[in-house]
Amino acid sequence: MAGNTWGQILRLTTFGESHGPAVGGVLDGVPGGTLLDLEAVQSAVNRRKTGQNPYASSRQESDLVEWLSGLEPGAPGQPVRALGTPIAFLVRNTNAHSSDYDALQDVFRPSHADYTWWAKFGLRDARGGGRASARETVARVVAGDVARQILPQSVQGVAYVERLAGIGTDPALLESGSVSSLQLRTESHPLRCPDAAVAAQMEQRLADLKEQGDTAGGVVAVRVDGVPAGWGEPVFDKLHAVLGHAFLSINAVKGVEFGSGFSGAESIGSAHNDSFTGLGTTATNRSGGIQGGISNGNSLVFRVAFKPIASIAQPQQTVDVYGQPQVVTVGGRHDATVLPRAVPIVEAMTYLALADFYLLQRINRTT
Amino acid sequence: MAGNTWGQILRLTTFGESHGPAVGGVLDGVPGGTLLDLEAVQSAVNRRKTGQNPYASSRQESDLVEWLSGLEPGAPGQPVRALGTPIAFLVRNTNAHSSDYDALQDVFRPSHADYTWWAKFGLRDARGGGRASARETVARVVAGDVARQILPQSVQGVAYVERLAGIGTDPALLESGSVSSLQLRTESHPLRCPDAAVAAQMEQRLADLKEQGDTAGGVVAVRVDGVPAGWGEPVFDKLHAVLGHAFLSINAVKGVEFGSGFSGAESIGSAHNDSFTGLGTTATNRSGGIQGGISNGNSLVFRVAFKPIASIAQPQQTVDVYGQPQVVTVGGRHDATVLPRAVPIVEAMTYLALADFYLLQRINRTT
Amino acid sequence: MAGNTWGQILRLTTFGESHGPAVGGVLDGVPGGTLLDLEAVQSAVNRRKTGQNPYASSRQESDLVEWLSGLEPGAPGQPVRALGTPIAFLVRNTNAHSSDYDALQDVFRPSHADYTWWAKFGLRDARGGGRASARETVARVVAGDVARQILPQSVQGVAYVERLAGIGTDPALLESGSVSSLQLRTESHPLRCPDAAVAAQMEQRLADLKEQGDTAGGVVAVRVDGVPAGWGEPVFDKLHAVLGHAFLSINAVKGVEFGSGFSGAESIGSAHNDSFTGLGTTATNRSGGIQGGISNGNSLVFRVAFKPIASIAQPQQTVDVYGQPQVVTVGGRHDATVLPRAVPIVEAMTYLALADFYLLQRINRTT
Amino acid sequence: MAGNTWGQILRLTTFGESHGPAVGGVLDGVPGGTLLDLEAVQSAVNRRKTGQNPYASSRQESDLVEWLSGLEPGAPGQPVRALGTPIAFLVRNTNAHSSDYDALQDVFRPSHADYTWWAKFGLRDARGGGRASARETVARVVAGDVARQILPQSVQGVAYVERLAGIGTDPALLESGSVSSLQLRTESHPLRCPDAAVAAQMEQRLADLKEQGDTAGGVVAVRVDGVPAGWGEPVFDKLHAVLGHAFLSINAVKGVEFGSGFSGAESIGSAHNDSFTGLGTTATNRSGGIQGGISNGNSLVFRVAFKPIASIAQPQQTVDVYGQPQVVTVGGRHDATVLPRAVPIVEAMTYLALADFYLLQRINRTT
Repeated sequence: MAGNTWGQILRLTTFGESHGPAVGGVLDGVPGGTLLDLEAVQSAVNRRKTGQNPYASSRQESDLVEWLSGLEPGAPGQPVRALGTPIAFLVRNTNAHSSDYDALQDVFRPSHADYTWWAKFGLRDARGGGRASARETVARVVAGDVARQILPQSVQGVAYVERLAGIGTDPALLESGSVSSLQLRTESHPLRCPDAAVAAQMEQRLADLKEQGDTAGGVVAVRVDGVPAGWGEPVFDKLHAVLGHAFLSINAVKGVEFGSGFSGAESIGSAHNDSFTGLGTTATNRSGGIQGGISNGNSLVFRVAFKPIASIAQPQQTVDVYGQPQVVTVGGRHDATVLPRAVPIVEAMTYLALADFYLLQRINRTT
Repeated sequence: MAGNTWGQILRLTTFGESHGPAVGGVLDGVPGGTLLDLEAVQSAVNRRKTGQNPYASSRQESDLVEWLSGLEPGAPGQPVRALGTPIAFLVRNTNAHSSDYDALQDVFRPSHADYTWWAKFGLRDARGGGRASARETVARVVAGDVARQILPQSVQGVAYVERLAGIGTDPALLESGSVSSLQLRTESHPLRCPDAAVAAQMEQRLADLKEQGDTAGGVVAVRVDGVPAGWGEPVFDKLHAVLGHAFLSINAVKGVEFGSGFSGAESIGSAHNDSFTGLGTTATNRSGGIQGGISNGNSLVFRVAFKPIASIAQPQQTVDVYGQPQVVTVGGRHDATVLPRAVPIVEAMTYLALADFYLLQRINRTT
Repeated sequence: MAGNTWGQILRLTTFGESHGPAVGGVLDGVPGGTLLDLEAVQSAVNRRKTGQNPYASSRQESDLVEWLSGLEPGAPGQPVRALGTPIAFLVRNTNAHSSDYDALQDVFRPSHADYTWWAKFGLRDARGGGRASARETVARVVAGDVARQILPQSVQGVAYVERLAGIGTDPALLESGSVSSLQLRTESHPLRCPDAAVAAQMEQRLADLKEQGDTAGGVVAVRVDGVPAGWGEPVFDKLHAVLGHAFLSINAVKGVEFGSGFSGAESIGSAHNDSFTGLGTTATNRSGGIQGGISNGNSLVFRVAFKPIASIAQPQQTVDVYGQPQVVTVGGRHDATVLPRAVPIVEAMTYLALADFYLLQRINRTT
Repeated sequence: MAGNTWGQILRLTTFGESHGPAVGGVLDGVPGGTLLDLEAVQSAVNRRKTGQNPYASSRQESDLVEWLSGLEPGAPGQPVRALGTPIAFLVRNTNAHSSDYDALQDVFRPSHADYTWWAKFGLRDARGGGRASARETVARVVAGDVARQILPQSVQGVAYVERLAGIGTDPALLESGSVSSLQLRTESHPLRCPDAAVAAQMEQRLADLKEQGDTAGGVVAVRVDGVPAGWGEPVFDKLHAVLGHAFLSINAVKGVEFGSGFSGAESIGSAHNDSFTGLGTTATNRSGGIQGGISNGNSLVFRVAFKPIASIAQPQQTVDVYGQPQVVTVGGRHDATVLPRAVPIVEAMTYLALADFYLLQRINRTT
């Protein structure tokens, strides 16, 4: 099935289980001759790694990307050219503590994928969630950064933690200032929240939760500038429908909205419409840069809701594979919040979706 | 491109412009021998028709479905068998007033798809929005009801207007009582809100807006019972990711959430987890019936946010194709709210997505 | 399933049974703004019609193409512009004599698809072969001529009857002279054989066979000039692999070869290699215009083998659906040979495949 | 693009260049719980290896398959269960002599893919043909043997060298005796021709050619027993059309035919039809086990034509990237004939195609 493959022209197939030998992917459709900075890809992967802040899992992976195909040989540190053939890569799982999961062999952790994968496939890979683990997303980050490098340089995106544990930044922050200034402020704090004062409050609240063995949900905000008008495919593959699909495919996501989103549903037409001030320019951006499923040249604006991590260090009521009641306390090494690490994953899916639309748009017009 | 095609096994390709000869579709992948009630399909289409309440467009279409292929000949009114070949159908556009759109020939309506389609394809079909019009969704409703009939009879869904013009029902209503009782209450009011008292308030508010030439947004809630555990495809085609894609592809949708959704992002793990009470039964359903992208046997729960219709009967600032400022007042025959008519469209996309996963799941297990 | 859909970027989905209301298709991916001559499409369809020579079925269909979507309104007889949306079309079945097939209701005709479709779908559409009938190919011819009009004007193809009933033209004829002269000579004879003397012999042999209630097989040769180097996709979608797939999907085809084909298998390397005489020019064309699955700028050269039509007017041994022996004499109105009518179908599949590769190649290079 | 991916349900994506770090693939769609014998896979790979006979390339690769994902951990030598997730694997390129190709850096080898890939991608990977090299097929053989193990045990196939260097076995041999006896006789000779006397003649002829620095083409015959009636998808994805596509995608293939093939094109209906002797049994098998694109329960019968290898040890006329005339003598380590090594590759593509149809057929019927 295509469930492990993303995209139409730029196609990513990922593979790998959390505690198997490796995770990785094959990215097909990179145009021959594309110059790629592999060190930038590694940097993107490093941003996703665990152990970067005290609220993240202590699982330590080196996460070095090994490139298997699709690239011209090049000098170390220099950009290389894509051959136009599939770019395969893998990342070894070097620090998998499968024994952490021995106690979970027959028990379904609440709000995890243990039960549903067992129901689907008739067997289970208890070791760290198998392929349902967020470990899989490392392959998306590798491919997402390659996708970013395929896009025109005008396209610049940023994602950050807008809300965490009930605390949030001003929503207007997302569309104020430049993308690059938001990037800078986002990366300057381990929680990846660009408002330092708010980030400090989040940090305090998170410390409390961690002490209680609890976890927190939140919202990642996304903005992309420089997408020209005309990207997106009618009818089913509207730009926001595919981006929404991409975001909803990330572990722990419970909702997605773009532009005015759910608050737009409370509005009325005269207050919600974006008046044109010129060709491709509007007085407001409640549309989030998209009309009729196609980009209009404004900033793309999305928000992605993440539930709290289900792995809490508290005893919980559950059942085992025989349907018998059990009490489970999840060990292993887990994040208190997934939000800061989710930021590069959200970015990766953004770039994968956009690069596909960019390549598709090359064939849509006769002129 | 695949933008006009939905699905992997059960594949729907739709065609047609708002003011062209016809809209329709080809539905491929219906298993040979499936018994189909074509009158039920026509009833679903009739539920989507305009002119059913005073707040809907006065465009009157007979919307009779003409079946072109894929069905055994049968006696009128009797179920027919699917041949296993593509089921093609069309609905003629009999009441298209293209002249309503003459004044709009060179002008971009604010928050419509006029500008973006022009940017994409280098030409425009000004007549009623062309293929960006919601007229296209009639084909989805036809196919969606066929999809419903492919599904096991245990699968029962309902969608209704939960919020409209800032007024809403109790969110707990969605998971109280049976699906069939919700269906009954929903269809008993022209606004398709199952809480009669709330519906009356919505009606009043809508009358005021219509008087002002204005429009209202809202939220459609969806619930599906009877989906067994195991539907959905890892990694990219999670059940909720594909359903979200489906809903976001409907005109005017700005957001989608499932289970606890955006409110879940404000929660903490100990409060959010669904404890197991048995194999496939849980004390709560904050997961919305899905874990790790795969159904867990509980009710599927989704919410879909619709912006207010952009076609308001008030003068608006805009530009024409030459970039010159213009004032436009949109004529034509438009709804004051899209919400009641969106209900059968949301249901249609629900069934199309679910039937595809149902067929995919037939091949996922060796036993 | 995708079995009724052809192509990746330019995608054709066909529908319709031989004796149902209509056959037709949806062609998606035609770039917006493409100028289309619909009268040329109708002419291509007319070339495929029955009743054009005494050896063809007497079933008379008007085969008028009705266009349903995807086209700008235009003046009669003038080219119209494609909107970039799906182009749907249908052809009514006006002359279906289902009663011809009453005697066949429960009997499997030898070497027909009756038995296998029944085994596949668990039911059968006995009326004229249902969707297994060559009636379906009318949709391919419509779409194929649209595809031809998408291609650069430099691309010029011809197909003709090279062998029929054991009689054949000189194989060297295919690559001698211009494509346009071969087209002219091909269309000047009802058997579509460009060598008039050979055609006369074929005609005589065919008259004898028809008298005996028998049928004949043959070979269609194909040549396409003007394809630039670089079309085709590695590894699985080599240019000849996809063209071969296309040809093998036509009813009654038993084999396909390109360039030296099966005779090349008898050769040795030093005799078979095509020496380069310049960039993209070679001394010989045993490669048939393709190396490593990608066009090299030479003429594409293919040959397609058709078995004799299985519907013969002689009593044959068979069984019915109960496995009981029966003798069947196939009535209905059938061709004595499918070859002349196969020519426009082979051309159609050629253009559909090539136009897809042309559009794909737009996205393969950075420059 | 999809050019590096094969299949609809069982999907193989291959990657890797001849002289890059590795070749490999990702096989998605293997049903969860499928028992796999990995040693059998390695044996299939070993059958494809070079250096097995004096007429094959002396390039020595260990070709050990490394499994990266999709499998339950298991004891060495014991079958393991597929998890239902993508099975990724790689084979390192350990013996790549890139220096062999230094002299070819700027020169196009006649009848190779050098020129066309350069024209397509705007760059070239001169090292051993890059991804156009048959080295890529090792990944197909790995996946093909997994596919074989997915199929019902009743499905048994054999491929062998039927013709080589102008010498051939009796065509009737293919359908005489059992598949297993043909397998045994085929594998007992390094040329993989089951008729020992003919094989000896081939060997003599091949020794002569090798002495002259020349190469030979030939034909591989394929037979598969045990495929039940009902596999194959109408209209475009007929069983033989997809198998034909699969075979034509193998390097050096120039033609494919099934059943009576090109000789059937010379026949007449009364002589060609296969009379039914019972439900699913026929007096003859000129149809090659397929009617209307769907299996009929008889043996599947195919023949695949391979041209002589283009890499000959004789000086040849060519041009370089500047269009200047050059004389080239191809060094490197090349086979005198590709035929014996092509046998396991043909088998692999057979199983990949059949397993896909097998899985598709699970969803085609309501009962």
